[in-house]
Amino acid sequence: MLVKSQVKYIQSLSQKKSRDEEGVFIAEGPKIINELLSTPNIQLQQLYALSEWIQQQPQTLAASAIEVSAHELERLSQLQTPNQVIGVFRKPVFSKITSYHHRLSIVLDTIQDPGNLGTIVRCADWFGIQTVIGSRECADVFSPKVVQSTMGSISRVQVLYEDLDTFMEQHKDIPSYAATLHGTGLYEMQPVKEGFLLIGNESKGIREELIARCRHRITIPRIGHAESLNAAVATGIILSHIAR
Amino acid sequence: MLVKSQVKYIQSLSQKKSRDEEGVFIAEGPKIINELLSTPNIQLQQLYALSEWIQQQPQTLAASAIEVSAHELERLSQLQTPNQVIGVFRKPVFSKITSYHHRLSIVLDTIQDPGNLGTIVRCADWFGIQTVIGSRECADVFSPKVVQSTMGSISRVQVLYEDLDTFMEQHKDIPSYAATLHGTGLYEMQPVKEGFLLIGNESKGIREELIARCRHRITIPRIGHAESLNAAVATGIILSHIAR
Repeated sequence: MLVKSQVKYIQSLSQKKSRDEEGVFIAEGPKIINELLSTPNIQLQQLYALSEWIQQQPQTLAASAIEVSAHELERLSQLQTPNQVIGVFRKPVFSKITSYHHRLSIVLDTIQDPGNLGTIVRCADWFGIQTVIGSRECADVFSPKVVQSTMGSISRVQVLYEDLDTFMEQHKDIPSYAATLHGTGLYEMQPVKEGFLLIGNESKGIREELIARCRHRITIPRIGHAESLNAAVATGIILSHIAR
Repeated sequence: MLVKSQVKYIQSLSQKKSRDEEGVFIAEGPKIINELLSTPNIQLQQLYALSEWIQQQPQTLAASAIEVSAHELERLSQLQTPNQVIGVFRKPVFSKITSYHHRLSIVLDTIQDPGNLGTIVRCADWFGIQTVIGSRECADVFSPKVVQSTMGSISRVQVLYEDLDTFMEQHKDIPSYAATLHGTGLYEMQPVKEGFLLIGNESKGIREELIARCRHRITIPRIGHAESLNAAVATGIILSHIAR
């Protein structure tokens, strides 16, 4: 049985402010929950689940989960169709970044779609990139939809939020590469061992002032007619060419 | 002023069956509407818009649009936040495909997420691919969410729905490339001028029986730790290496 304060607590975690204050986030559904449970860097605070899900779990985990009814799960869930289990997890703890030298990092200007942000984080993880620096206008990486689309990569990729003009000024000794529609053809580029890859907003691209701060501009050559590429797809394509 | 039958008609177009019967689809919001209006292969049937949107349009277009109130737009809209204008368009007409030789096409096994399907179509368009063959379990390319994420590429890329086992059997003389987690490294591949690129379901990948029908298996080498890549991102990465 759930008590009212638990319902309130979990519902409050749909808000960034509450997640920040508590240092936790929520995830829903067996797939992402299993992924997070098997990740060393993510600590479980509490699971709320239907009895059918609990019965399939190892004993220690099953013993610690709070059983809820389908109706209770619905009250806790952010999803249109609640999916068996909701977990509250502590945000991962990353070691402090002392230098951006000798590694490739991603810088995001105003990626507002949660699915895009999550997909970019997952993509960064695939290509071994450990840090994403987002502008303050980016979606919160611990919002439920982003957590869902990172598929566990949230535990391995650190996402920091910065004022990008200040950040780029502070790190102007690091080579920077802006993904734009009019730059050097991607296929002419050599692998990049050190630098920032800048990806822009879904419809507006990277702000002019930020492009001006970048040493290089990269373009994915277009063969057909699409006006642009999705931001996460563009990130994946560029990484596959420069991060190998 | 809207009449009841118009409201019913537009609401019915959220269903695939009605779209198929009528040969039309709907799009919402200034950006995608403008994109579709400027596309030769897409014919407008009717626009429903707020007066502020109509006032900004060229005279002939403005004269043909039906003005609706914010409240009426809400009744017509599929979106949580209706966005100024809704258009009903005739489905694009493509010439019949007589051969899959001498060109690269994409084959999708059960891509169910509308956003992923739309992003794949847009990506195909970027790389000059004209045909996508989806299994019957794929999302409908004319569903409002897919239309939205194709950003107009829906007018240039033909999406056909087939029973993939039959289709692959009928075209077994065409080279086929399955995107899997255990195949030839993508970076070792030469550009592909003729063939099918097979992309699998978001969580299950390509069905085993279909993989068995493919001559080649391709893998995007992983450097980091993500379990998999998003289906649209994987499509973009592979195309950027083989479709240039």
